[in-house]
Amino acid sequence: MSASDALEKCPPQDSVGLVSPEVYVFQQPLPLASGHQLDQWQLMVETYGELNADASNAVLICHALSGHHHAAGYHHADDPKPGWWDAYIGPGKPIDTNHFFVVALNNLGGCHGSTGPASINPETGQPYASDFPVLTVRDWVDSQALLADRLGIQQWAAVVGGSLGGMQVLEWSLRHPERLRHAVVIASTPKLSAQNIAFNEVARQAIMSDPNFCDGRYQQAGVIPRHGLGLARMIGHITYLSEHSMGEKFGRDLRTDKLNFGFDVEFQVESYLRYQGETFSERFDANTYLLMTKALDYFDPAAECDGNLAAALAPAQCRFLVISFSTDWRFSPKRSEELVNALTAARKSVSYARIRSPHGHDAFLIPDQRYEAVFSAYMQRVAKETR
Amino acid sequence: MSASDALEKCPPQDSVGLVSPEVYVFQQPLPLASGHQLDQWQLMVETYGELNADASNAVLICHALSGHHHAAGYHHADDPKPGWWDAYIGPGKPIDTNHFFVVALNNLGGCHGSTGPASINPETGQPYASDFPVLTVRDWVDSQALLADRLGIQQWAAVVGGSLGGMQVLEWSLRHPERLRHAVVIASTPKLSAQNIAFNEVARQAIMSDPNFCDGRYQQAGVIPRHGLGLARMIGHITYLSEHSMGEKFGRDLRTDKLNFGFDVEFQVESYLRYQGETFSERFDANTYLLMTKALDYFDPAAECDGNLAAALAPAQCRFLVISFSTDWRFSPKRSEELVNALTAARKSVSYARIRSPHGHDAFLIPDQRYEAVFSAYMQRVAKETR
Repeated sequence: MSASDALEKCPPQDSVGLVSPEVYVFQQPLPLASGHQLDQWQLMVETYGELNADASNAVLICHALSGHHHAAGYHHADDPKPGWWDAYIGPGKPIDTNHFFVVALNNLGGCHGSTGPASINPETGQPYASDFPVLTVRDWVDSQALLADRLGIQQWAAVVGGSLGGMQVLEWSLRHPERLRHAVVIASTPKLSAQNIAFNEVARQAIMSDPNFCDGRYQQAGVIPRHGLGLARMIGHITYLSEHSMGEKFGRDLRTDKLNFGFDVEFQVESYLRYQGETFSERFDANTYLLMTKALDYFDPAAECDGNLAAALAPAQCRFLVISFSTDWRFSPKRSEELVNALTAARKSVSYARIRSPHGHDAFLIPDQRYEAVFSAYMQRVAKETR
Repeated sequence: MSASDALEKCPPQDSVGLVSPEVYVFQQPLPLASGHQLDQWQLMVETYGELNADASNAVLICHALSGHHHAAGYHHADDPKPGWWDAYIGPGKPIDTNHFFVVALNNLGGCHGSTGPASINPETGQPYASDFPVLTVRDWVDSQALLADRLGIQQWAAVVGGSLGGMQVLEWSLRHPERLRHAVVIASTPKLSAQNIAFNEVARQAIMSDPNFCDGRYQQAGVIPRHGLGLARMIGHITYLSEHSMGEKFGRDLRTDKLNFGFDVEFQVESYLRYQGETFSERFDANTYLLMTKALDYFDPAAECDGNLAAALAPAQCRFLVISFSTDWRFSPKRSEELVNALTAARKSVSYARIRSPHGHDAFLIPDQRYEAVFSAYMQRVAKETR
């Protein structure tokens, strides 16, 4: 019996089961931070669980750099893998679909069904490509607010996200403070450091210097900037894993039993990275990658208050849960603690957990007992409020 | 009065002054770890100070990834910059040329005058390019030993190097234990971690996927894999600086006074990295870069003793000074301490200093009072032995 047979006959009891994405089309203009606006646009959305009568049990999931709307469950009976946060969304899981109505979407600018650079620009009849406007976290939050309107959700029980998703959560608390009761910010930061921006810039340069990038119009040219996008992903992967977990996973293991004194794959870690780069460049859009890294770079709510984060957090009305992971060096615990300290200084309600984990930044996606315990306990309190 | 006028009229008193490199041609075959051999080869060399009568005061400087023979002094009166380690080599400096005869060379495979991929292969009359054999740290040390023979140096007072240079120092102590009295290993490691190899692999992929790389025969094709080499350098630079120093140097400062919502240079750190990448690709050879990263990856003296570093260190007869820097995350203090602990376990004489510095891996090149004090004190003891 194969794994897919197993799924068909016996879906995991704690899974949301089979799910289908849905497209929401918006004909209303969306003004963007850049000064541009999108006149018509669409979002690809998945929901899990049932919205209750007073629409008080809705939880929004915000995704990270390469994420999308498919956060939990399976798309068909043979689906080999569930959604990207299936470990944390489902019946009895931290985001418990027995209690919550969960909304996950592909962000604008994405490449999984929401309007993005690969979509047709109605003004030209051609893909937007490099004409697609640069987006900010604020733009995403505004589009998510219009989605909430459409779904009849006036106030989220919680907005939840990791990494770039955590930035959207924080922006929600400031931009639409009356529209969420809880903000769960995981493995995130109130702003990128110079080193974070530097890694993003190298990734962008790798993509843009690929001759197949064609100034962003690779789709029209019928090519893919595969090497550049692969390099960008390889760089990203190094920053997602801890030095320790990379060492544990690969060490200095060779792929064959001796050195080949050449430039083919030699160490296991090289093989892993090349594979990550190659598969990513087949399933992700280069222009979307550029947009996502820019949104990361730009996010800095304190900038509007001369760098005073506590002052910038003044509008927030919700309660916060902040979670960091000990070996995350992309957004280290210090960065989460910067946020926690500013929230405290701004007299906001905040719970904070620093989880000991060997998995680096990726820890926010990986099953872990202590992380689950903290996350579940908090969400159970949120659920109690909505009963 | 310009800086160069100043130099012409008044060279710094603690400088070795004007220096000239010299080519040493070797007609004797050099067998390599890969099984290949170089039948005739040359090294580009600089020396500072005077060799004493019994040739007991010679110090060998081993360079790091992008280093070369020009370690100290100036090449001409208008030279805007001295050699790469001028802060530490000169009269009254830690490697005091009033006492020591200092030898610096460009390693084999380099692109600064020693035989390397850009040199003419006598068998074909064409540049070696990708036919140049992959080299190891051991091969370098063997070539340096032949240089020592030529210079009449039977035993070095000290062999000294930082980063990849430190690996050569360690290899000297094991490969030719009777030929050095002191080994100074700075900001180095007894082997690369999986993360270190991963960064090297991304750099190599960036170079090799540049269409101008032409399978390594770019010289014959009249092109340069500029973008790939630039990316490799950008990645390297991120790992040479500490997150803190990058933050101090650039923060989130913008190049102009507002966001441009595009993909041109926007943050100062982007501008810095692009500049570093561009200038490097004009002065460095891509095939050499590939070779140097491979030598780094391969170095692992403990491998021959089933990973037991203390056992591998058994042959060493010299005394060791090991120096690390607190914010170096490329080769963190832990990696130096791994070496120190193994040396101690192997009952070798070792002094160790962990220097508090904000400068990351680059700290080994940068003037710093405590580092200078430790380094000078040790080298003065070495000098006393040779009087």
